[in-house]
Amino acid sequence: MSHRIRVAIAGYGNLGRGVELALKQNPDMSLVGVFSRRDPASVTLLDNDVPVYAMADIEQYQDDVDVMILCGGSKSDLPEQGPYLAQFFNTVDSFDTHAKVPEYYAALDQSARDAGRVALLSVGWDPGLFSLNRLYGEAILPEGETYTFWGKGLSQGHSDAVRRVPGVKAGVQYTLPSTEAMARVRSGEQPELSTREKHTRECYIVLDEGADAEVIRDSIVTMPDYFADYDTVVNFIDQATFDKEHSSMPHGGFVIRSGHSGADSKQSIEYSLTLASNPEFTASVLVAYARAVYRLARVNDIGAKTVFDIAPGLLSPKSPAQLRKELL
Amino acid sequence: MSHRIRVAIAGYGNLGRGVELALKQNPDMSLVGVFSRRDPASVTLLDNDVPVYAMADIEQYQDDVDVMILCGGSKSDLPEQGPYLAQFFNTVDSFDTHAKVPEYYAALDQSARDAGRVALLSVGWDPGLFSLNRLYGEAILPEGETYTFWGKGLSQGHSDAVRRVPGVKAGVQYTLPSTEAMARVRSGEQPELSTREKHTRECYIVLDEGADAEVIRDSIVTMPDYFADYDTVVNFIDQATFDKEHSSMPHGGFVIRSGHSGADSKQSIEYSLTLASNPEFTASVLVAYARAVYRLARVNDIGAKTVFDIAPGLLSPKSPAQLRKELL
Repeated sequence: MSHRIRVAIAGYGNLGRGVELALKQNPDMSLVGVFSRRDPASVTLLDNDVPVYAMADIEQYQDDVDVMILCGGSKSDLPEQGPYLAQFFNTVDSFDTHAKVPEYYAALDQSARDAGRVALLSVGWDPGLFSLNRLYGEAILPEGETYTFWGKGLSQGHSDAVRRVPGVKAGVQYTLPSTEAMARVRSGEQPELSTREKHTRECYIVLDEGADAEVIRDSIVTMPDYFADYDTVVNFIDQATFDKEHSSMPHGGFVIRSGHSGADSKQSIEYSLTLASNPEFTASVLVAYARAVYRLARVNDIGAKTVFDIAPGLLSPKSPAQLRKELL
Repeated sequence: MSHRIRVAIAGYGNLGRGVELALKQNPDMSLVGVFSRRDPASVTLLDNDVPVYAMADIEQYQDDVDVMILCGGSKSDLPEQGPYLAQFFNTVDSFDTHAKVPEYYAALDQSARDAGRVALLSVGWDPGLFSLNRLYGEAILPEGETYTFWGKGLSQGHSDAVRRVPGVKAGVQYTLPSTEAMARVRSGEQPELSTREKHTRECYIVLDEGADAEVIRDSIVTMPDYFADYDTVVNFIDQATFDKEHSSMPHGGFVIRSGHSGADSKQSIEYSLTLASNPEFTASVLVAYARAVYRLARVNDIGAKTVFDIAPGLLSPKSPAQLRKELL
């Protein structure tokens, strides 16, 4: 490779830190800077040699960055930052508001095309790798059903809800795939299942001193919208156990395509992820796709793209001949 | 779609029959003919309305076929048919002699480029979907190990070996992933495992009248190259059970990428197939990729290709906008 791919990060939270870590595992790329809306002097990276710049100055660096990895949130950051930054940089982001994808895609595409840039949206595992498996599954087995299960995984919104219950000192909520629903799907039965039938919920709670566990359990399992319609298990633990066992951000899930070919040959495709760190894994996917963005930009294949548009070989540092020889 | 994609089949055995079946599940494609080296009058298709032609006349039909699906064997058919037919047709095949891929690719590429055609090789599940998952796995988790397990699946070569043992009236051999090896890999231990450590073997045997079961069991489990170095279980059954339970061609397997991100966050990606019919599933993959070949040919993106070169969206009958809306 003639030079290392120059990557920068816009937004330095859990995801941005994950991207910094993932880049260290990819010797054909280098992190040339981090952009933050905070005072750059207040942002401490894992690697002190990488400069931190003010987001307000980002336009000045458009000739110094091959790919900008956008690590802001989907709710308010990306809808604004994505189309703005695609004017100056080739970008990749993890936009995950499924319902707003068409609108976001259109805004990015316009901006990227006008500027002759590549803007790759909705990269990660869902949307991202799970989306790919939904597509491969239904293209290969047109007669069948696709099932997506999430978990075991930390759910931020539900953890917040649990912590708002009076008497709860600390708490987390995990979403788990329902064992029964998974077994039915794997049997090839092709059941109709709602999201709630497919999942159960598990809470780990540290109580305030003197709080009544049974009252709190009842408040949680009957909470409308969040827990009332699910099977929910509430576990009470002490603060030391909580700190030790519930401070990471595990996640994962399954995409299963259950179909048939011919007369009635049952065929099943299953894809699953077991992740100790959700943000670090999403970051690893973003970095692999940043390599693809760089390559598309080099051949002037511009505009907004999704994982559906990216040939798999573009993700690997290996040459096409090496891939055919080693991995086919 | 302006017209249905006109597909033809070259070679009508188990795989060709699977392609005929798979095409019926894809309303944007139609089977316009089957080419065989046998006397066309002796070849009976599932659908009597589709014409059968002599392989010797195939050049005459080059304007009538959008994509030719090659269903011959990798050992002697494809090395000759592939480069020859790529002169006249856009092709897709399931060439699976891993060691000879570079050589076959070069021959196909030359032929297809000279003729302005697309030739997609080594499509199916391994090589094919498993190859894709090996690539995605190592691109996303560069620090880790990839494990491929095959089975439970019927092994043709080992079944033939079992049937050559005197006293065996009928027999099949299944390869199974070793439960112990799978557990070690899934634990994130990243063990070093040879192919034989990863698999066990299971035989179902019908005895000739008067044959000694123990002598035959011993002949099988000690057979050099085939069984001696594996854990092998031999089951004796009657002919009726054999006919009922061992006449289909199940297969499947697993690709597991076990890696880590950051300091030591364990991350695991697992892909698995459970197939009631191996040839029908391979055929279903070939048909989805035939759609991609058609689209590449329309934009003149010619030459030899592998699954690594094919953007996933090209496999689906849905438009890019529909894919973004429904599957991302």
